[in-house]
Amino acid sequence: DRVEDIIPEGHIAHYDLNKLHSTSDSISDKEHVLVLTPMQTFHEKYWENLLKLSYPRELIELGFIIPRSDAGDAALKKLETAVKNVQSDKKNNRFSKITILRQESQSFDKLEEKERHSLAVQKERRAAMALARNELLFSTLGPHTSWVLWLDSDIVETPTTVIESMTKHDKPVLAANVYQRFFDNDKQQDSIRPYDFNNWAESDIGLQLASKMGDDEIIVEGYAEIATYRPLMAHFYNPSGDVGEEMALDGVGGGCTLVKAEVHRDGAMFPNFPFYHLIETEGFAKMAKRLNYEVFGLPNFLVYHIEE
Amino acid sequence: DRVEDIIPEGHIAHYDLNKLHSTSDSISDKEHVLVLTPMQTFHEKYWENLLKLSYPRELIELGFIIPRSDAGDAALKKLETAVKNVQSDKKNNRFSKITILRQESQSFDKLEEKERHSLAVQKERRAAMALARNELLFSTLGPHTSWVLWLDSDIVETPTTVIESMTKHDKPVLAANVYQRFFDNDKQQDSIRPYDFNNWAESDIGLQLASKMGDDEIIVEGYAEIATYRPLMAHFYNPSGDVGEEMALDGVGGGCTLVKAEVHRDGAMFPNFPFYHLIETEGFAKMAKRLNYEVFGLPNFLVYHIEE
Ligand SMILES: Nc1nc2c(ncn2[C@@H]2O[C@H](COP(=O)(O)OP(=O)(O)O)[C@@H](O)[C@H]2O)c(=O)[nH]1
Ligand SMILES: Nc1nc2c(ncn2[C@@H]2O[C@H](COP(=O)(O)OP(=O)(O)O)[C@@H](O)[C@H]2O)c(=O)[nH]1
Ligand SMILES: [Mn+2]
Ligand SMILES: [Mn+2]
Repeated sequence: DRVEDIIPEGHIAHYDLNKLHSTSDSISDKEHVLVLTPMQTFHEKYWENLLKLSYPRELIELGFIIPRSDAGDAALKKLETAVKNVQSDKKNNRFSKITILRQESQSFDKLEEKERHSLAVQKERRAAMALARNELLFSTLGPHTSWVLWLDSDIVETPTTVIESMTKHDKPVLAANVYQRFFDNDKQQDSIRPYDFNNWAESDIGLQLASKMGDDEIIVEGYAEIATYRPLMAHFYNPSGDVGEEMALDGVGGGCTLVKAEVHRDGAMFPNFPFYHLIETEGFAKMAKRLNYEVFGLPNFLVYHIEE
Repeated sequence: DRVEDIIPEGHIAHYDLNKLHSTSDSISDKEHVLVLTPMQTFHEKYWENLLKLSYPRELIELGFIIPRSDAGDAALKKLETAVKNVQSDKKNNRFSKITILRQESQSFDKLEEKERHSLAVQKERRAAMALARNELLFSTLGPHTSWVLWLDSDIVETPTTVIESMTKHDKPVLAANVYQRFFDNDKQQDSIRPYDFNNWAESDIGLQLASKMGDDEIIVEGYAEIATYRPLMAHFYNPSGDVGEEMALDGVGGGCTLVKAEVHRDGAMFPNFPFYHLIETEGFAKMAKRLNYEVFGLPNFLVYHIEE
């Protein structure tokens, strides 16, 4: 066993971080995964999807951070009920630990999807999200954690093997490709479309733009106003390609992104200030790279964002 | 009670970070203090000093990180013995929790005080220390932690009220002035001298130097090779001044520095890469400022570094 409690009755815990692994063989190695979700809205489908995951629950800890707002109050109530149900079930159906945090930092009021995504509000909104992610991360990461899976509360569909499949790649940072199901009115049929444009590779034009920017300006990806010509992972999805195909990235989103705990433990967090002109999850990817870790994405490995 | 466990038997922990305070009245508010010590050497005097602190032990958690080296092996043995003694004592003499981590990241081999401080080795050494501090911080900070006291293992003398006295100032980041006792051969008497030059305020010359530096160059304070003309707190000690006098700082050391947990929780860590040309504890101070927190020192509040 890699977690050794010498004298638990004396409240002493002793961990050898060098014997704590994050490997491609995470289940047989009994690696602990911390699933972290900032949650403004509780979606039944997120929860159902989470309960369907095949990774052993005794190896999964969950952490939530909920904003101080009416939306947050409502989400908290639903989450508490859901959590009580699963945790009062048979002992081996329980998650190893669940931590629910009420956010200290100010939350950004709920906006409609369109408004929420307007470039003008992005800086403030993403900065607030960065603080929420940091509060959650710093409060829940333990000395026994091998992996952190960032999973947004509006990701309502993933493969049930999402943890095993992603850990198998053995990458420091690895982002799934976030798509969205919708009804295509033109074709009158169900369809899918790219959703998250924060998973990208750097481009010469992106670097040039950054070099001309003022110290405190930021680039947020996915806006016509800032044409970076960065290759966006969302556009690299190939339905007939290998689902395990990897793509080197420089920016990531937080929708469904797996991180080796050592990357965070070395210091990679979510800057709420411009870090190389990037903030939040995109700034985190840059920080991971500054800490000498590589960042990848899986263009053909799709997870789905709710359609609101 | 501010830490509310709804259903502990179901492994659910519920915390409202907004009700978690770090106030000037830390003891009566029952605020939890996490004392963090990177430890290459176990000094009896450090331990004796720690045991003499007057802050209630049930409100103190200790966290240690020990390098993977022969020196580390020796320190670990002594620390374990010391820890077992205190934690198997009467229940109310115990610290609330003690976590001992064995470092994952590479440690910097033990060097003599002179060599260790030569400018050439500083960058590598301080970068390694940054990783050790981050590993320790990210693994031990909990949702119930109000304050973090960074206390180096070679700080062998502090006022017994160091925690109460420093929390009383109610500052986001607050550094004590690290001095050293020595025998003055000229005067043939015991004396004291400044030890830590990492506590400083920014100067125009320091900023000018930084502006001319390459992206990856760093400034480390306290070297004749780089004359920054920064006001160093070490030189502001006034034996007849008010012990509570405060001084605004821009860089801090890690010898004896108190941090509100929310500063770390918002994301302030110890960069091992140049951050505004600063690394480790000095980079941390800059990061705290980027997160909109103020940084102070107490020039007349002395703590003592061992003389080797
Ligand atoms: N704690 C917290 N979570 C939030 C806040 N705003 C959004 N979230 C959550 O953060 C994640 C991403 O936010 P979202 O608005 O969906 O971003 P989008 O998908 O890029 O539009 C989701 O899981 C939200 O539930 C907030 O203010 N505080
Ligand atoms: N974990 C760990 N601690 C270290 C290492 N090197 C030094 N330390 C500790 O870090 C603190 C500061 O280091 P020290 O060498 O005393 O720095 P100085 O006082 O500035 O010369 C002390 O508490 C040391 O025991 C290391 O490689 N790993
Ligand atoms: Mn979303
Ligand atoms: Mn020292």
